[in-house]
Amino acid sequence: MRKKTEILYGIHPVSEALKARKRNFFELYIAKDKISKRLHKVVEAAEALNVPIKKVETAKLEKMTAGNHHQGIGAAVTPYPLAGIADIVDIAGSANANCFLLLLDNVIDPHNLGALARTALCVGIDGIVIPKDRSALPTPAVSRASAGALEHVKIVCVTNMVNTIKALKKKGLWIVGLDSAADRSIFLDDLTGSIGIVIGGEEKGIRPLVKKQCDVLVSIPQIGLINSLNASVAGGVVMYEAFRQRSLRK
Amino acid sequence: MRKKTEILYGIHPVSEALKARKRNFFELYIAKDKISKRLHKVVEAAEALNVPIKKVETAKLEKMTAGNHHQGIGAAVTPYPLAGIADIVDIAGSANANCFLLLLDNVIDPHNLGALARTALCVGIDGIVIPKDRSALPTPAVSRASAGALEHVKIVCVTNMVNTIKALKKKGLWIVGLDSAADRSIFLDDLTGSIGIVIGGEEKGIRPLVKKQCDVLVSIPQIGLINSLNASVAGGVVMYEAFRQRSLRK
Repeated sequence: MRKKTEILYGIHPVSEALKARKRNFFELYIAKDKISKRLHKVVEAAEALNVPIKKVETAKLEKMTAGNHHQGIGAAVTPYPLAGIADIVDIAGSANANCFLLLLDNVIDPHNLGALARTALCVGIDGIVIPKDRSALPTPAVSRASAGALEHVKIVCVTNMVNTIKALKKKGLWIVGLDSAADRSIFLDDLTGSIGIVIGGEEKGIRPLVKKQCDVLVSIPQIGLINSLNASVAGGVVMYEAFRQRSLRK
Repeated sequence: MRKKTEILYGIHPVSEALKARKRNFFELYIAKDKISKRLHKVVEAAEALNVPIKKVETAKLEKMTAGNHHQGIGAAVTPYPLAGIADIVDIAGSANANCFLLLLDNVIDPHNLGALARTALCVGIDGIVIPKDRSALPTPAVSRASAGALEHVKIVCVTNMVNTIKALKKKGLWIVGLDSAADRSIFLDDLTGSIGIVIGGEEKGIRPLVKKQCDVLVSIPQIGLINSLNASVAGGVVMYEAFRQRSLRK
């Protein structure tokens, strides 16, 4: 069962969640001895929304955030507001859609999920699909790793990635899988139109059954001796190549 | 004063350092209870180079690597083999040079330096210039964060970044600074030919005096609400855009 409250922490996650207005704020916690100008701005934003504000001992805040890097601020909020798969499929199916989705197949490192969400927001991704199992989930730690970007993106959590891809394909989405063994370069492939980019997990890449559903597999060309990029960098490079191509076509 | 020995740890750093052959290996340490197939391959590579191999208790290895994620392997080696500035300036100055340098102005997070080195190796960067002060340095932790890529790239550590840039410009290098406030997009600028890409630190970007030396400032276009990318992702995107353009021009 999902918890009804979670503790967001860090200046960016809390302030971006206040801006996004997708979560309910029950209480804002400020460390007594850490009030800074930056914190003060967040407090003002919370006050404007009538969020109760509590000054607490730093030790208490540390305990609430399980020792994480809280920067003197925390907030009791409703859990991450997941989007429904229908929302995403509807975007894909709407007339004149130029849909741009990201599908993460077993990305398990919360830092990678955070960095990918951050880049996704920068390039205007319409939605991120992740599987329920064997995946990092949109926790407060991921919001922190995303510098708060997580609060603005749309994340859908699905039981079966293969079925989701099938549904998206029926709506006309072109599914592009990133696979280091693929011959086709991301720079030579067409990444415009309604597309879903699939990125695999840190260890094994895209699972075979998911790979089979991809319309095309592409790789990031590499000339160095070590044949691998950090997962969040690889995701950044392919999302930005799509972004570049899509900007030129407008 | 620099230490004469340091302890590399993790499968990738140790195996890549053995391949790169830029460091002397004094001893290889293997945790007694962690021998795996992957570890065995590294041991074989070390044996081929007559490196003495010691089986140690995991607790001892943990102590040697200060509790870091050692994956059952460590090695006493000579410190990171820095390149001299002359090496880099020579590359830049050689006839028909198509030099591709990366200059990091106060990147302080070891994880970012590691990820940037990893991408730099993938795109064939000729050298990475970092300042001696207020910068992450090429430590074993950075080698780990780079998945061993650090062992193959050429890093130069300079006292004065401004003077280094001046020297590179005299050799004909075009200096491109990444600056989120710049109007020019990386996608519309010419990143071919002999260039040095300057990336600033996580907090404040490129320092004003260094910025003044840049021939052009470019930014990564962003359409989202939060105006920032993770430093290693931003570096990856700009290095790969240069790589893309340079591949087309060959």
